[in-house]
Amino acid sequence: MVFHNDKVTGLRIAYIGGGSRGWAWGLMSDLAAEPALNGTVSLYDIDHEAAKHNEIIGNNYKNALGAQSVWKYKAVKSLKAALAGADFVVISILPGTFDEMESDVHTPEKYGIYQPVGDSTGPGGLIRAYRTIPMFIEIAEAIMKYAPDAWVINYTNPMTLCVRTLYEVFPKIKAFGCCHEVKGTQALLAQAISEILDGDCPGDTDFYTNVQGVNHFTWINEATWRGVDLLPVYDKFIDYVRAESIDTQEKDNWANKHFRSQNAVKFDLFKRYGVIAAAGDRHLVEFLPAWYVKTPEVAESWSFGLTTVKSRKEGLQKRLAKSEEMRSQKEPYKLRLTGEEGVKQIKALLGLGNLLTNVNIPNSGQLSNLPNGPVVETNALFTYDNVIPVNAGDMQWDVKILVERIIHNQETILKAVFTGDKELGFRAFLGDPQMCISMDDAHALYEEMIANTKQYIPWIK
Amino acid sequence: MVFHNDKVTGLRIAYIGGGSRGWAWGLMSDLAAEPALNGTVSLYDIDHEAAKHNEIIGNNYKNALGAQSVWKYKAVKSLKAALAGADFVVISILPGTFDEMESDVHTPEKYGIYQPVGDSTGPGGLIRAYRTIPMFIEIAEAIMKYAPDAWVINYTNPMTLCVRTLYEVFPKIKAFGCCHEVKGTQALLAQAISEILDGDCPGDTDFYTNVQGVNHFTWINEATWRGVDLLPVYDKFIDYVRAESIDTQEKDNWANKHFRSQNAVKFDLFKRYGVIAAAGDRHLVEFLPAWYVKTPEVAESWSFGLTTVKSRKEGLQKRLAKSEEMRSQKEPYKLRLTGEEGVKQIKALLGLGNLLTNVNIPNSGQLSNLPNGPVVETNALFTYDNVIPVNAGDMQWDVKILVERIIHNQETILKAVFTGDKELGFRAFLGDPQMCISMDDAHALYEEMIANTKQYIPWIK
Amino acid sequence: MVFHNDKVTGLRIAYIGGGSRGWAWGLMSDLAAEPALNGTVSLYDIDHEAAKHNEIIGNNYKNALGAQSVWKYKAVKSLKAALAGADFVVISILPGTFDEMESDVHTPEKYGIYQPVGDSTGPGGLIRAYRTIPMFIEIAEAIMKYAPDAWVINYTNPMTLCVRTLYEVFPKIKAFGCCHEVKGTQALLAQAISEILDGDCPGDTDFYTNVQGVNHFTWINEATWRGVDLLPVYDKFIDYVRAESIDTQEKDNWANKHFRSQNAVKFDLFKRYGVIAAAGDRHLVEFLPAWYVKTPEVAESWSFGLTTVKSRKEGLQKRLAKSEEMRSQKEPYKLRLTGEEGVKQIKALLGLGNLLTNVNIPNSGQLSNLPNGPVVETNALFTYDNVIPVNAGDMQWDVKILVERIIHNQETILKAVFTGDKELGFRAFLGDPQMCISMDDAHALYEEMIANTKQYIPWIK
Amino acid sequence: MVFHNDKVTGLRIAYIGGGSRGWAWGLMSDLAAEPALNGTVSLYDIDHEAAKHNEIIGNNYKNALGAQSVWKYKAVKSLKAALAGADFVVISILPGTFDEMESDVHTPEKYGIYQPVGDSTGPGGLIRAYRTIPMFIEIAEAIMKYAPDAWVINYTNPMTLCVRTLYEVFPKIKAFGCCHEVKGTQALLAQAISEILDGDCPGDTDFYTNVQGVNHFTWINEATWRGVDLLPVYDKFIDYVRAESIDTQEKDNWANKHFRSQNAVKFDLFKRYGVIAAAGDRHLVEFLPAWYVKTPEVAESWSFGLTTVKSRKEGLQKRLAKSEEMRSQKEPYKLRLTGEEGVKQIKALLGLGNLLTNVNIPNSGQLSNLPNGPVVETNALFTYDNVIPVNAGDMQWDVKILVERIIHNQETILKAVFTGDKELGFRAFLGDPQMCISMDDAHALYEEMIANTKQYIPWIK
Repeated sequence: MVFHNDKVTGLRIAYIGGGSRGWAWGLMSDLAAEPALNGTVSLYDIDHEAAKHNEIIGNNYKNALGAQSVWKYKAVKSLKAALAGADFVVISILPGTFDEMESDVHTPEKYGIYQPVGDSTGPGGLIRAYRTIPMFIEIAEAIMKYAPDAWVINYTNPMTLCVRTLYEVFPKIKAFGCCHEVKGTQALLAQAISEILDGDCPGDTDFYTNVQGVNHFTWINEATWRGVDLLPVYDKFIDYVRAESIDTQEKDNWANKHFRSQNAVKFDLFKRYGVIAAAGDRHLVEFLPAWYVKTPEVAESWSFGLTTVKSRKEGLQKRLAKSEEMRSQKEPYKLRLTGEEGVKQIKALLGLGNLLTNVNIPNSGQLSNLPNGPVVETNALFTYDNVIPVNAGDMQWDVKILVERIIHNQETILKAVFTGDKELGFRAFLGDPQMCISMDDAHALYEEMIANTKQYIPWIK
Repeated sequence: MVFHNDKVTGLRIAYIGGGSRGWAWGLMSDLAAEPALNGTVSLYDIDHEAAKHNEIIGNNYKNALGAQSVWKYKAVKSLKAALAGADFVVISILPGTFDEMESDVHTPEKYGIYQPVGDSTGPGGLIRAYRTIPMFIEIAEAIMKYAPDAWVINYTNPMTLCVRTLYEVFPKIKAFGCCHEVKGTQALLAQAISEILDGDCPGDTDFYTNVQGVNHFTWINEATWRGVDLLPVYDKFIDYVRAESIDTQEKDNWANKHFRSQNAVKFDLFKRYGVIAAAGDRHLVEFLPAWYVKTPEVAESWSFGLTTVKSRKEGLQKRLAKSEEMRSQKEPYKLRLTGEEGVKQIKALLGLGNLLTNVNIPNSGQLSNLPNGPVVETNALFTYDNVIPVNAGDMQWDVKILVERIIHNQETILKAVFTGDKELGFRAFLGDPQMCISMDDAHALYEEMIANTKQYIPWIK
Repeated sequence: MVFHNDKVTGLRIAYIGGGSRGWAWGLMSDLAAEPALNGTVSLYDIDHEAAKHNEIIGNNYKNALGAQSVWKYKAVKSLKAALAGADFVVISILPGTFDEMESDVHTPEKYGIYQPVGDSTGPGGLIRAYRTIPMFIEIAEAIMKYAPDAWVINYTNPMTLCVRTLYEVFPKIKAFGCCHEVKGTQALLAQAISEILDGDCPGDTDFYTNVQGVNHFTWINEATWRGVDLLPVYDKFIDYVRAESIDTQEKDNWANKHFRSQNAVKFDLFKRYGVIAAAGDRHLVEFLPAWYVKTPEVAESWSFGLTTVKSRKEGLQKRLAKSEEMRSQKEPYKLRLTGEEGVKQIKALLGLGNLLTNVNIPNSGQLSNLPNGPVVETNALFTYDNVIPVNAGDMQWDVKILVERIIHNQETILKAVFTGDKELGFRAFLGDPQMCISMDDAHALYEEMIANTKQYIPWIK
Repeated sequence: MVFHNDKVTGLRIAYIGGGSRGWAWGLMSDLAAEPALNGTVSLYDIDHEAAKHNEIIGNNYKNALGAQSVWKYKAVKSLKAALAGADFVVISILPGTFDEMESDVHTPEKYGIYQPVGDSTGPGGLIRAYRTIPMFIEIAEAIMKYAPDAWVINYTNPMTLCVRTLYEVFPKIKAFGCCHEVKGTQALLAQAISEILDGDCPGDTDFYTNVQGVNHFTWINEATWRGVDLLPVYDKFIDYVRAESIDTQEKDNWANKHFRSQNAVKFDLFKRYGVIAAAGDRHLVEFLPAWYVKTPEVAESWSFGLTTVKSRKEGLQKRLAKSEEMRSQKEPYKLRLTGEEGVKQIKALLGLGNLLTNVNIPNSGQLSNLPNGPVVETNALFTYDNVIPVNAGDMQWDVKILVERIIHNQETILKAVFTGDKELGFRAFLGDPQMCISMDDAHALYEEMIANTKQYIPWIK
């Protein structure tokens, strides 16, 4: 890597989960569009074939319309080969297959627990964490060994526990997690500005939102735009949306298009708590007791979908076809920018300009009334080789309680996996907000879900 | 009050709720049995008639068989009259009538929430707190004005919020709360010693139990007796009880006799968490989600009763009759010692010997991984004019989470009442572990319960 | 105040100490040079004559060469008149006269304590705080009453205790303190870049320095510039300066020119502690025991001056003459920008662009291993109507100890003044690092210094 | 070890430093006087000859007048031999010889620093810690290996750092430190009761003193006796002592008789701070800056002695003669009880009755406004296999500052030795309250003291 004339050349990026047929293509676009950087991306995936396919696709991106830089992509066969010499590591993996995800999401329905996503919290999130944490232990150990100075960017869910595991294994790791959910809420604020203030708010640089919480259960307690306090604006916007039945779905975010909601939960939470929940409704409801998902009918009444894993499986087929099509270069490549901040973050960490954005890292005081250590989501200042949390202050008391409960349970899950303690894990399972069922049912559900995913959790004998 | 030759004479005790037909008679017995003290007890009650009746009964106790001291009882008509000059204040009141209690306990059943007691937590505990806190605000203000140096002993439920209110209004108050539930668990330990070790454990002085938690949701994480660790003994005892279907009900505690349980929940919690839950099953299940009370059938399967308020109303009739009988002195009085520690505590605070016992006071570090300020239950050393908490250490992580959740919610209830914020109160209501219902149901239940008790909660407009 | 087209017009600034013949003129220059703002400045001073003189001078600035905006200046006779309607309040006062300052600085010399400045800490700083805190109590009360929503910028020393007093009286005040000392150290870093790296580092936007500590005893534990870690660069620079006897005095800062040092203490501290002390040597040595000022000879050996108050009195004469000259407008005005960030901060708080800079505000977690509440100096993000501390992390253990000691003593001084407790104040006096004298001498010195300044400290009877 | 009928037989005690000619004989007396215990004491000492002598003496104690139990003493040649199978470990060693102690105490005098004892703090205490910590690392490792379940009682100075080292090496160690200084202050309180109240206060069970601080720098902020607050009594007592020139020296404590003071410092501190310093003046002054020891004349004016190591060397000669005399059994042995609480503590830990006393253990919240981890001195409850700290509450703000400074510096010393960082150690040296000298002098003194003791600090290359 060479820093010269406000450019960095010869950058080395390791992509773990490099066979991905979504995030990987997005990153390829974003990198190709960036004139200030170039270098090599090593693609590692347990599905080596998929990585090889992405090597072909990645190397084609230099020909895309509007490409500003040339990157070399190379599929490799081991974590070591990917990591050695890396300046940055990107992690975006699927822990297990859609079959395990099917159990995560749908088995609890037999006992009356409904999960729209099932990847971050709830019984599904816990079992997914059971599979994912061991993988992240292996990744963290490899980073400690082969790339201890690299910056690590995680996109995998459960976000909080993934990043937390990296720090647990290797406390000096320079890792953080990125998620676009807060951007979605900022887009909603922009819509509010437009509707209520007749303002034109072109991008996120124009407003300041103070972000507090954990990934997918983040909250905004302050939002300003050009000298205006946006919270009362948002309040009026909700009334307007309700009165006029305005459509507030995000339409143009490629990642969200199959997973719609009308923000009815987010709006109800604002009216009750006075602060803005900053993730999608489908995520939010999973961090709370049965309030919005007691039954499918209750969910329906709040206008969000209970995504089936069947739809995800269908999506996969489409992406496999797309991969083949891209490899064949039938059509000229187009740059489809993700709107993710990964490349901006990389630039800031290289010393190419400071960046203020939200990020998932261990709390070291930025959320002043939550415990230090667990991973939280707040704003941070990205500067040369440093991610410095910005003080997000105290969370509002009654929202803090909701978030702290999640943090506590996630810490318990972490301990359970690290110590191989299935019974401690069950106590975490019991502790989940959605666990409004009898002790006997809870135990039966736990055993059934474990049985369904057992090949990925060898730590449970 | 005069301290002379290891006796204290001329002590002045104010009894708020002095018309009580239970606690009051117990205290009269205990005082009469104590040779080292004498003095005057002022009885104050909003039901002045009841206080007058107790004046008669109290003054009769000097004639009881075995009485060691003479106390003068006097019904008074105002808090001021009761408190002026008091050395000690005893508070034992019923907030509202059994009609309000009926709504507390039984209205939630319509929405699928079952409460065996409904006085400490759950929707019933919250609404009871709504009634009680304003009364305790008035009491605390009167103490601050008329008896700021007196020691205050509370027996009223919800214990934690009653004591917490006293300190919130008058931070320098010298108050604590007493509860006999931990004694019940110590009796169970004595039974375990007897069954498993063939030991004879005559009283609580022989063992040390480290108490942690909040009232009615207390836990014992260390218990020793003559060089023996009692936790494995308790574990074996549970196996033995289950195998042999032993009866472990407390039989001789007058206060508990109508409210039986077989400790099945307490035993299950020990097997799951490894520490001893130290309150009765009927209380314990209310501090947890639906695990043990999802339905009446689930409750039945754990062998504890869902006490009806109807039975309480019947009990009241018997006590009214008893009061009349006692006033008539038909039969000679007997001293029926309560086993409560109130009189021992009074003696220790007067300088008549140190006492180590469990007590409810604000956390000032004794529970080192719980926040300071809220009222917790741990051991404390009673010495002259001082109640010094003994370090109870950290609570075990997964139990701490359960307790902290309760603490947080109780703090929210307190704030709601003090600020008159009905919506904040609803957020506390939502935050209760038992609130496993939909948002719409929760809101309907809240409004219905408030309507049923509205004359006692003028702070809600 | 009107926000329109990226400009703010009709801004109202209250200047307390508006008769100042230094800071006030600097602010006038800075405001005149700023095209995006205009408005009115109310000048309040207990020396109303001085304020009237500054009214004339201020109103002349619109004619200065290069002036970009027109400001109206108006001397007023009361705090109320100055504050009513103010958007911003600037405080820059001299507590007492140079006679009191003479005692602050020179009386301790009789007992073997030498202070180069005597305004922030040491016996001189304590007595100056005794005079200043009552004035700031009055100011804070007036702000609470007449301008509770205004932002308050303090320049007065002792900086930490002045800002701390504002928050103690009015916890919701929006106040912060500004000081240019850290800028001086950043200039030294720029010199190091130039000498060691042959780099050209034109301004502070190019590097990131993490600031930690209290005013005049601040430390930089991280400094980077275009991808370079500056701490080893600074280390080499020190060796080079020592080997070549390079002159490292700041020459062009108007405020510092009479108060030179060669940074020998700052360099010795870096070699010992490994982090950069970020204030001038004359300030730094006062926060430490006798290490660098045991005797005047020791001070001489470290190449910094023991500034006499005599020189300050002479300076005052020159400034009085300058004031007369300026009022007469003999020569055309020139804009002499201060390099202070006051105007940039005002713009950021108005919503005219974010600003990252160092600032003095109460710790709310930004210095994570120091107590919350006391005023500390770290970086903060200025955004619309908000000053958000950036996490400065933990201070290095052995430096933290030095700083925490100062914080503790300052808190004690605060309590002493607020409670009128002269003896508690003496214990703070004893607790100062420089108090390496016998108990009897300490007491005699305390009484003597109090006697010398007694007309300004009516709270000591 | 067998527990039977309220006795414990076959107890095994390891005595490290078992050649001691003071503490060891005291323990022998105390054990012989205790009817409820018997067993074996292994004596280990690097001076094996001395241990052999004590084996003879120890075994003679069974013949002492009034002996209640028979103990077997055995000199052993290794830590392993001493520790294997031990129930209790007593540590009382001299780190180095009186020659090193001579440098500790007297070398600083050349630079103007006077230390009456030089074993706990100050430059002497630091260098003594440099020698002692490595020895305690070795001891802790041996305990972890050979006697991990034994209770460990330390008497060696520097007490705080010795106990702290044990926990640093072996966090699960069951260790505490004992010191009789607080008892001395309790005796002074008894004298106050006698003089001022005409009370007869026969022993420590009659009063409650709340102990706070670190060893030799402990404070009593609450003291009561039979319903009386003793702080005003102590205040009057001081006035009386000063007015009447009463002798307040302890006369009958064998350990203190050569080391007199008139408590003038303790009394002055009470008059200034309002709480009782609970160690001897000779210790107290060393934890403070030059206030009471600026010069030998200042020390003289406060009526305490600057003990010379010469006198200690003379004392040693007398004890050597005494050892020979005892081995020859010329005269019948007498039991000379130490008044130390070691044997009472052993009994309580065995389950033979609870004990409340002061003790040195890591802070886990008992001193609520001091950091957790460092070793502090407070009351604790000794019960079966447990030492439970009693909440000592917050230290008074201005006293806390004094104590916290010591704690911080001791933690720095610990880190310096554990990491072998001589320069960090120098920063601790600089941080000592007595270090009121110039940087150059401090550095010269540090190097000289290290040179004088270098054979015992191999960790400094």
